[in-house]
Amino acid sequence: MTSAATKSPAVVLLSGGLDSATTLAAAVAEGYRCHALTFDYGQRHRFELAAAARVAKALGAADHRVVRLDLTAAAGFGGSALTDAIEVPKAEYAQVQPAAAGIPVTYVPARNTIFLSIALGYAEKLAAFDIFLGVNAVDYSGYPDCRPAFIEAFERLANLATAAAVTGKGQFHIRAPLIHLTKGQIIQKGLALGVDYGLTHSCYDPDMKGRPCGRCDSCRIRRAGFEAAGAVDPLPYPGGT
Amino acid sequence: MTSAATKSPAVVLLSGGLDSATTLAAAVAEGYRCHALTFDYGQRHRFELAAAARVAKALGAADHRVVRLDLTAAAGFGGSALTDAIEVPKAEYAQVQPAAAGIPVTYVPARNTIFLSIALGYAEKLAAFDIFLGVNAVDYSGYPDCRPAFIEAFERLANLATAAAVTGKGQFHIRAPLIHLTKGQIIQKGLALGVDYGLTHSCYDPDMKGRPCGRCDSCRIRRAGFEAAGAVDPLPYPGGT
Repeated sequence: MTSAATKSPAVVLLSGGLDSATTLAAAVAEGYRCHALTFDYGQRHRFELAAAARVAKALGAADHRVVRLDLTAAAGFGGSALTDAIEVPKAEYAQVQPAAAGIPVTYVPARNTIFLSIALGYAEKLAAFDIFLGVNAVDYSGYPDCRPAFIEAFERLANLATAAAVTGKGQFHIRAPLIHLTKGQIIQKGLALGVDYGLTHSCYDPDMKGRPCGRCDSCRIRRAGFEAAGAVDPLPYPGGT
Repeated sequence: MTSAATKSPAVVLLSGGLDSATTLAAAVAEGYRCHALTFDYGQRHRFELAAAARVAKALGAADHRVVRLDLTAAAGFGGSALTDAIEVPKAEYAQVQPAAAGIPVTYVPARNTIFLSIALGYAEKLAAFDIFLGVNAVDYSGYPDCRPAFIEAFERLANLATAAAVTGKGQFHIRAPLIHLTKGQIIQKGLALGVDYGLTHSCYDPDMKGRPCGRCDSCRIRRAGFEAAGAVDPLPYPGGT
């Protein structure tokens, strides 16, 4: 077994949701010393911050930092149902929204670009050349910053932008191990790696106690994923799973 | 004259220094409605925040926002003389540091990537497709994120990352009007545009009253620039200019 000191460091973006928990588990399983990074950006589903702390601890992250950055309308940003007074769309019987249907109102402008940029600064400080994130281009909500072309463009940028890359200390790799998996495959992978999905939080619009609504995009994609994986979601949904 | 309402919006990164003030003046002169964006990231030269506010007002920015984001060592970032307890290098008689000499200790990991990413989110919210920044690849401190290749890579990323670009609402342009100018040419341009450089702040290590040290990289490059421009720097330096 490799000791913590000799493991290669990696930065892992951890929202507290299903995908990022699975990504952290994958990075840990690959043998990285994982520095989990979470953003407190004014999201209305703030329960995911507590979920991120639980997940980081349960999966053995070396540490867990929360960066505060206000991306709400009050700070001049926003215009997203995730941060502002815009209703989170729900549809009891609707299909999971296809990627081609346009950009959902839960899109936060440039969110993954901002998160990856800050992760890059943190990674350069740590001399960590692998940055993991849980984006997924199959069963997702149609966000432009979840696509392989975006990840490749960011990796290229990272290796032009940083002293570490330019002076030959190392090349950054943006690692998106879930990008070509379906939600069902992600859940199967996470279960095989021992992820306790009862610790995660996916809902965009939970109740006062943090319980998922079961009807927003994120809940519907998650529930369909568990069904496809032939597994039971440990989270309590209204009216049962 | 175009009214404020019909002008195209632009986001302008404004540090409060000489280059960004000149860039804002150039963007205003091009007819943009300029939304100035400043970062309070824990820099030790915090006098530049007040300078940014003065410059934004004097040059007629439509508004001026300050984004707080802690990039210091205390927050897990840093490792730069600009944010942490690392001495700012000074050399009374040294030459301005050439770009090939390596990366100076004043480098802040991924700073321009982070600033541009947040500017991109802000610009998308405003439907502003031009983002101006005052980077310069001639008389600069050797930062990798000031080079044309970096700017081009970021522009490419921006047009993959955002809903606005992907849905055909517009293409983002990262505008760096000073990138090929010498410091002397920048100052001449700014003086022609009516910039009052007495409002700006460049020093990395000012005294308690915000007066420049005259000896850090930033002061030395600035002073050499005024000399090359055949102009007088209105700032008070120790022992006079």
